Amino acid sequence: MYYGSIEAGGTKFVCAIGDADFNVVERVSFPTTTPEETFAHVFAFFDQYALKAIGIGSFGPIDINPASSTYGYITTTPKPQWGNVDFLGAVKARYEVPIGFTTDVNAAALGEQRLGAAKGLSSCLYLTVGTGIGGGAVVNGQLLSGYSHPEMGHIIIHPHPEDGFAGICPYHGNCFEGLASGPAIEARYGVKADQLSESHTAWDFVALYIAQAVMNYVLILSPEKVILGGGVMKQEHLFYMIQTELAELMADYVALPDLETYIVPPKLGDDAATIGCFMLAESMI
Amino acid sequence: MYYGSIEAGGTKFVCAIGDADFNVVERVSFPTTTPEETFAHVFAFFDQYALKAIGIGSFGPIDINPASSTYGYITTTPKPQWGNVDFLGAVKARYEVPIGFTTDVNAAALGEQRLGAAKGLSSCLYLTVGTGIGGGAVVNGQLLSGYSHPEMGHIIIHPHPEDGFAGICPYHGNCFEGLASGPAIEARYGVKADQLSESHTAWDFVALYIAQAVMNYVLILSPEKVILGGGVMKQEHLFYMIQTELAELMADYVALPDLETYIVPPKLGDDAATIGCFMLAESMI
Repeated sequence: MYYGSIEAGGTKFVCAIGDADFNVVERVSFPTTTPEETFAHVFAFFDQYALKAIGIGSFGPIDINPASSTYGYITTTPKPQWGNVDFLGAVKARYEVPIGFTTDVNAAALGEQRLGAAKGLSSCLYLTVGTGIGGGAVVNGQLLSGYSHPEMGHIIIHPHPEDGFAGICPYHGNCFEGLASGPAIEARYGVKADQLSESHTAWDFVALYIAQAVMNYVLILSPEKVILGGGVMKQEHLFYMIQTELAELMADYVALPDLETYIVPPKLGDDAATIGCFMLAESMI
Repeated sequence: MYYGSIEAGGTKFVCAIGDADFNVVERVSFPTTTPEETFAHVFAFFDQYALKAIGIGSFGPIDINPASSTYGYITTTPKPQWGNVDFLGAVKARYEVPIGFTTDVNAAALGEQRLGAAKGLSSCLYLTVGTGIGGGAVVNGQLLSGYSHPEMGHIIIHPHPEDGFAGICPYHGNCFEGLASGPAIEARYGVKADQLSESHTAWDFVALYIAQAVMNYVLILSPEKVILGGGVMKQEHLFYMIQTELAELMADYVALPDLETYIVPPKLGDDAATIGCFMLAESMI
């Protein structure tokens, strides 16, 4: 009997099964196309195994309020065809096991707090900067939630005066995601972010925006560790640039740990959300 | 035997004793002058009563990490003479009872969550906009803390293009507090905020900045209630302006409760922090 994990991203889905120690036993990945086609891939994978519980970590916004009539839905996502999709309902109709439902980034935060870069700490922030930007957090040992889940990618920051770019967020234009996501970089320069040299001006803007966002997260949440993942953060030189910008912005107002050990990549790498989903699955039993 | 409360603000101290039901039995208030003089007033008040525990809610930044060598200190405050003051140590040396130590705004958030505007909810945000700007929060029924406490007044927002004011924060210039605190309004217009008419442009700027900050708090923390207190928020017309600005900024990206009932003044009024300090005192026994 295995834990099942569904990590649903805007670009791809990763499904996996894990053992009692949260080791990944088998895994499959496929692009996020239509809900129908994508769920067919999910079911084809899990139908092969005996499951004891499933954890879902989904892109959002999603409805995580169990008292709501649309609990388990993906709600107002700008991703075509995925608005108002009953994600949890589709999986529940197929598998009669306990199923946990949270955001992909909350799942990653949970994985990193229990077994990764924030192991032994009671709080952490996990931010992904990729196709979209999203954040999850653990506070006092528990997943952060309230009225709903965080949507940290859409916060307001201060655009650089020399960055004339209007931003690509369909809701907010030049919010953090609208200025610093992978597609925002591509829209500015006409090439994918990973094609730009390390000395390209793009990285000055992106590092500044990520540093501003991290400053806001730190001033509001005071996490013990800040973990930055996602496609854009594969550019390792960004970490030093962000740490440097953050130190300058913060101006020593609040005491922080050494920034080199405070702002780090995920220790579980691309498995953070998968392992977090196993833990979420376990918590539902 | 009473609970003692010390609400330490940058402008004034409020000391009070409370009964087992957290009713205020006696209260005294005096200006925050030098630490020596101010503590003499604190002791003169509490020396009259038999106390079972004390809760301190202090302006900050403060050190709330019990493992730290400066636990209980006010740390890098720009307030003259109050930097590096051992607040908790001074009170501990005088009274041999359990003493809790947190921020003034965390205490107010706790009071409002248990008995005030967020009663029955598991999360809330409390923001004070006055001499300074600070925020506290309850998440999953517990006070928000991590590496340290929040310092929400110093977040980065987007200055209005027609607001040429450079801001007055000695650390960050035009951060939220630097642009929207009472002294920032006074520095712009040469008169105290409460002297400006309701139709003055000042309120357009201030409402926009508070709405931007609330947007960031909501996107990061997702509280079930947002409570706005402090001197500047005594201008009741600001609530409608902030609700209107926030709706426009958020652009329906995330579902929120009706903003008229979501963004509200403290139900405990000026007693929020005092009552929260009684609760903090009780939790230390």
